[in-house]
Amino acid sequence: MSIITFVGAGQMASALSFPATENGHEVRLVGTHLDREIIETAEASGFHPTLKRQLPNEGIKYYQIEDVELALDGTNAVLCGVSSFGVDWFCEKILPLIPDSVPLLLVTKGMIALADGFMITYPDYFISKLPDGKKLSINAIGGPCTSYELADKDHSAVAFCGTDIEILRRFKKLFETSYYHISLSTDVVGVECAVALKNAYALGVSLAVGLAIGTDGSGKEHYNSQAALFGQSVKEMKHLLEIINGGAENIIYGAGDLYVTIFGGRTRKIGTLLGRGFSFEKAMGELEGITLESIVIATRTACCVRRLAKRGMLQLSDFPLLMHVDNIINNGAAVDIPWTSFETEKY
Amino acid sequence: MSIITFVGAGQMASALSFPATENGHEVRLVGTHLDREIIETAEASGFHPTLKRQLPNEGIKYYQIEDVELALDGTNAVLCGVSSFGVDWFCEKILPLIPDSVPLLLVTKGMIALADGFMITYPDYFISKLPDGKKLSINAIGGPCTSYELADKDHSAVAFCGTDIEILRRFKKLFETSYYHISLSTDVVGVECAVALKNAYALGVSLAVGLAIGTDGSGKEHYNSQAALFGQSVKEMKHLLEIINGGAENIIYGAGDLYVTIFGGRTRKIGTLLGRGFSFEKAMGELEGITLESIVIATRTACCVRRLAKRGMLQLSDFPLLMHVDNIINNGAAVDIPWTSFETEKY
Repeated sequence: MSIITFVGAGQMASALSFPATENGHEVRLVGTHLDREIIETAEASGFHPTLKRQLPNEGIKYYQIEDVELALDGTNAVLCGVSSFGVDWFCEKILPLIPDSVPLLLVTKGMIALADGFMITYPDYFISKLPDGKKLSINAIGGPCTSYELADKDHSAVAFCGTDIEILRRFKKLFETSYYHISLSTDVVGVECAVALKNAYALGVSLAVGLAIGTDGSGKEHYNSQAALFGQSVKEMKHLLEIINGGAENIIYGAGDLYVTIFGGRTRKIGTLLGRGFSFEKAMGELEGITLESIVIATRTACCVRRLAKRGMLQLSDFPLLMHVDNIINNGAAVDIPWTSFETEKY
Repeated sequence: MSIITFVGAGQMASALSFPATENGHEVRLVGTHLDREIIETAEASGFHPTLKRQLPNEGIKYYQIEDVELALDGTNAVLCGVSSFGVDWFCEKILPLIPDSVPLLLVTKGMIALADGFMITYPDYFISKLPDGKKLSINAIGGPCTSYELADKDHSAVAFCGTDIEILRRFKKLFETSYYHISLSTDVVGVECAVALKNAYALGVSLAVGLAIGTDGSGKEHYNSQAALFGQSVKEMKHLLEIINGGAENIIYGAGDLYVTIFGGRTRKIGTLLGRGFSFEKAMGELEGITLESIVIATRTACCVRRLAKRGMLQLSDFPLLMHVDNIINNGAAVDIPWTSFETEKY
């Protein structure tokens, strides 16, 4: 039995308590200051109010953030369960508390933009934030997996990435079950880039849903146009993976994750509203109070692609869908899919 | 104005009458012996009984098969609109009638297996069937496009492939409209292989739908498992494209077409039934009377992959999903997704 300390009690981290406890490990679920009510409720009744599921009956201990050091005492591994909005908090407050010998696994997926617009993976970002002289093994989870379905023990296939294959194998042993299937990769940039990109493109494909449903919402969903945008997304993602030297085979995580994101939740919702003709402000208003990582990530990715273009590393004209999504989000552009710019001649 | 003779009045060919007539061309729609009623009904009322749509009011002339030579007289291009089951008939009866100067465009997508199990593209197959000394330019349409949505003038993006880029450009000019978007490629093997493969894999991904819905049909659709099978499909398709020297960029047609096929019609239906636990015979019984190209193509593709493995050109273990689909269809295997064989270690 190992002890795994989860810092952050959001939906994905909490869902991972199922495979971990099923494998006989002790999960110490620590809420951040934003998770206070979640921890209170879960400790009292086992119910997770945002995951909307009963957490495992056995094997979980609950902690408020004040007790994080207690929760880290004697732990064998740490799971960082904060969203991208909590990353800096985690790096400042929690990273220094983790012993060098204890490996860290991030639920936070994708890339983050530095001040100069260059994007790096979350593991690299976390490493850059380590206190002087501190060494930690920092790994991350990529691939298509929604927390609800994981909690319901549906089959999910993900990738754990990091620089040390032995540590990745240890993490796989902690979490692999008959329904949670884990591939391992030391190509951190490839896995995380694929995963980051799908956020932007899920929004792009969802535009077709809204276009078909129409302004008054009475239309029927169509698939030819979704498929066209899906194919274009795969093409642009594959191209960007090549430019950043991520292995092209990571497109499987990008395409799989794109697929599940198009069917799930908020990114589809905003894309659909935009496709129906809502302005970006109005569409965001409809989703009020909900933080949309996909918007942040799409903006960052587009920003990064524009900078790479300025340096001559790529042609903006190879990314017409991403540029259009960015123009909708950030420049108030109306949805007007640049269909002809997707057309190619290969001979 | 050009004259385009469509031989075969099935759904896809008939749907293509919309962009062709909209561009001011004359469409001569010739029914095969199987299309007799379609032509009678459409000629009388403009209604296409299987496409379930009114065909364009102007620009179409209707012909029964007896009048095919009349329909070919003075034509500028021919569209072959038969399904894979009609290909041999077309090659024997119609190919000899087409003048050498008139290019042919095939609606029939994908690959066909020769007697030795090797697969070739339909354009190559048609060329092999040309009478001695006859030369024809034979081209094909690939990419995600369902006939209903094309007839409804929803946006669709496809690829025309053939060996002569100038002829492809002429075809593009005939058919390109504000909703029918055409890329061109001389990589015939790449485009057609991608398209053929998606048939097999659409069935594979649909298994997850059935598994989630369950034996009694009361379950809810899940997406993590579909996404996992989708990602695995993209991986296997990409790998096979590399082995046959089709450009890897054709994965965009494969992935796009896979996406639309999962949502459309018969292939999804059979995959869902199998996933719910129906035997192959019982599942096919539920769809009685319907010819399922995906079953034929999945079987052919698996057969071809097994032969390539025997020749040492690939490892069967790299195609676990395709092999499982083949075992379900052809060996009476029960659905039991080989999840762990999808897992990889990359370092």
